[in-house]
Amino acid sequence: MADQLNLNCFIKTEKDSHFPLQNLPYGIFKTSDNPNPRAGTAIGKFILDLSVLESEGFFSDVFKDRKKIFSNSYLNLFMSLGSDVRKRIRKILQHILSIDNPALKDNDSLRKQCLIDSGRCEMCMPVNVGDYTDFYSSKEHATNVGIMFRGKDNALMSNWLHLPVAYHGRASSVVLSGTDIIRPKGQTKADDADMPTFGPTKLLDFELEMGYFIGTGNKLGEPVPVEKADEHIFGMVLVNDWSARDIQKWEYVPLGPFLAKNFATSISPWIVTLEALEPFKTKKIIQEPEPLPYLKSRGSWFYDINLEVSLKTDKLNEPFVISRSNYKYMYWDICQQLAHHTVTGCNMRTGDLLASGTISGPDKSSYGSMLELTWRGAEPVKLPGNEERKFLADGDELIISGWCDGNNYRVGFGEVKGKILPAV
Amino acid sequence: MADQLNLNCFIKTEKDSHFPLQNLPYGIFKTSDNPNPRAGTAIGKFILDLSVLESEGFFSDVFKDRKKIFSNSYLNLFMSLGSDVRKRIRKILQHILSIDNPALKDNDSLRKQCLIDSGRCEMCMPVNVGDYTDFYSSKEHATNVGIMFRGKDNALMSNWLHLPVAYHGRASSVVLSGTDIIRPKGQTKADDADMPTFGPTKLLDFELEMGYFIGTGNKLGEPVPVEKADEHIFGMVLVNDWSARDIQKWEYVPLGPFLAKNFATSISPWIVTLEALEPFKTKKIIQEPEPLPYLKSRGSWFYDINLEVSLKTDKLNEPFVISRSNYKYMYWDICQQLAHHTVTGCNMRTGDLLASGTISGPDKSSYGSMLELTWRGAEPVKLPGNEERKFLADGDELIISGWCDGNNYRVGFGEVKGKILPAV
Repeated sequence: MADQLNLNCFIKTEKDSHFPLQNLPYGIFKTSDNPNPRAGTAIGKFILDLSVLESEGFFSDVFKDRKKIFSNSYLNLFMSLGSDVRKRIRKILQHILSIDNPALKDNDSLRKQCLIDSGRCEMCMPVNVGDYTDFYSSKEHATNVGIMFRGKDNALMSNWLHLPVAYHGRASSVVLSGTDIIRPKGQTKADDADMPTFGPTKLLDFELEMGYFIGTGNKLGEPVPVEKADEHIFGMVLVNDWSARDIQKWEYVPLGPFLAKNFATSISPWIVTLEALEPFKTKKIIQEPEPLPYLKSRGSWFYDINLEVSLKTDKLNEPFVISRSNYKYMYWDICQQLAHHTVTGCNMRTGDLLASGTISGPDKSSYGSMLELTWRGAEPVKLPGNEERKFLADGDELIISGWCDGNNYRVGFGEVKGKILPAV
Repeated sequence: MADQLNLNCFIKTEKDSHFPLQNLPYGIFKTSDNPNPRAGTAIGKFILDLSVLESEGFFSDVFKDRKKIFSNSYLNLFMSLGSDVRKRIRKILQHILSIDNPALKDNDSLRKQCLIDSGRCEMCMPVNVGDYTDFYSSKEHATNVGIMFRGKDNALMSNWLHLPVAYHGRASSVVLSGTDIIRPKGQTKADDADMPTFGPTKLLDFELEMGYFIGTGNKLGEPVPVEKADEHIFGMVLVNDWSARDIQKWEYVPLGPFLAKNFATSISPWIVTLEALEPFKTKKIIQEPEPLPYLKSRGSWFYDINLEVSLKTDKLNEPFVISRSNYKYMYWDICQQLAHHTVTGCNMRTGDLLASGTISGPDKSSYGSMLELTWRGAEPVKLPGNEERKFLADGDELIISGWCDGNNYRVGFGEVKGKILPAV
């Protein structure tokens, strides 16, 4: 049936395209002709301008007298309308793009207005991010870090298997893929030094993560029950939570990471909806010890999403893959994370970002940070041409891509990338 | 001269009023006649409606063609205009309220429109908060907590004297004074228990804090130098960072407080500007070891602000003072905090809130939390009528007030209060 869908689309997509008819992710873009940021969906090599379709009345059955949902600079208003509206728009988009529907296919003028070569488009921040929370929900990552810092016997903290550990991150510095990352300066202290020193971080790292955006929020004091959590989730993006390990080590006791993380967090431009991800759900994992009732998910909310991390140095001609992982390696699922986050009554708002924490797989080839890949720098990553890296160097570009493999098609996230510029 | 100022005001204020002509704090209010939230300043028992004065053209020399600065639901736009604009508006307001100026004093119709009895006004959230950061900058507080949890010899963490420790808090749950606080539920684990349990927090606490709002931000990647930090600060409020100590204890390793703090943070409605606080600066304290150059403040940025914490239980007829403290007990100042926060390049936005962390003075009568006042519950606070408290009970109302004492006048913050409702 999935194949059938693509055959039914009048825009032909390659089978390794991230954006077939099954995907229809949401993003914000602009063009040189029209510099107003507006909503679009990706279809093959094109971006479908949803603001044009909206003004032509294609969504009037759903939006009724609410106007200009898709002509805003952010998706927040659309996201706030809820999952039912999102699902109805998805059906309309699939119908508009259908080979059997002449409305767009046979209307040359409209097609020229609203189907734009993606090479001519510049992507923008899709969401006005409210609060940003970062979880720590990959057991392999937490175990790896635990072994490095506390030894094998005390690797996982005693709370880790009972609740999805998380901390509040910095929303202002969530940036779009492609934004350059300036090497941060900060305070660090060597183990054998008496006093701290100030300077550019020497241990600049990436963190392979995914995140989800809140569509509809909850009122302060009214927790989101785990069995209804998915209704509040709009969709997912790739996330790179850049980290300065030496700054982190010195600052993080007792209140957690602060400056080591607040200089930038990059996200991919397209938000892939839960509807598009639905066919890629994986089996529910067995959580032992059994979570408390407020954390018992109804169904499985893990997804089989291939993740690939590549590094492009100044000397390399093309990016070199340094890690292959998968989102299915998570321990705590998105519904458990949201239920936990709100169980005290904490309110979510449309546009809040909740990230997974670093995703690491079961072996070294699937680790999600330089910290783990090089085991704190002890085993540098080997690159072609005799280059190697313990951590990220100035000029390095780090690229994360992600996709689900269907039957002869993919539902992809595109990529999130960022290049390291020298400290100022 | 300060006295002279008050004599010059055509609205007479009592000498213990928090809102004489020297203060002129900014807030957002509404009335039953006009339910649109709009900007005002407090003067004695009145609120001066700045949106009315704006529409009458009183600020047109400053705002020029920028209109409706004061008729928004938040102060953000005004705050973003910078400290020079703020200082000019202050001068205009002092002139408008001057006994020698007939413009408002002798204009009955205008006075009726724009001078409103504060009893007829409902205060609203003054600011659309972007990010919220909580520091940990009181040495006495950090030492007290350190002694309780790690013993006297390791009370202060090794980084504490070198940098202003902080963590990112939750912006969505920053609420206005008067908002009821629902006792949060969460996961806790008793020391002698094998497994965690779920239920209402048993150790609900307040934290006596102050915070400041960012007026003008900085670009990502461009730190705010410590000697220019004050130019980015708009003004200060009282803050109560409600805390669930049992939830905090179980969840906080290794990434810091999360659910224990995210259910509510209350702020006072009036923002007192740095200009109003200027006369109450205290001597620069000696910081030993000497901070790194990026943390060396130019001048002193501590203020002599009296702080008083009162508790009103169901049985008490009036609030009972349980702590008397002062903002001058801080170790790290506001400019050091902002310089540190941005030194990695982290960007600030108009409306970001940076709080002090719990402010504790040198002795028990000046501690800023139940945790410290009762020494983890070991020494309950005695209240009139044989009541006592280890932590906060349902029905308790916690009130923090703050003011600077001038020569026969006060510059005050009013109060921040909140009542505990039972868990749902």
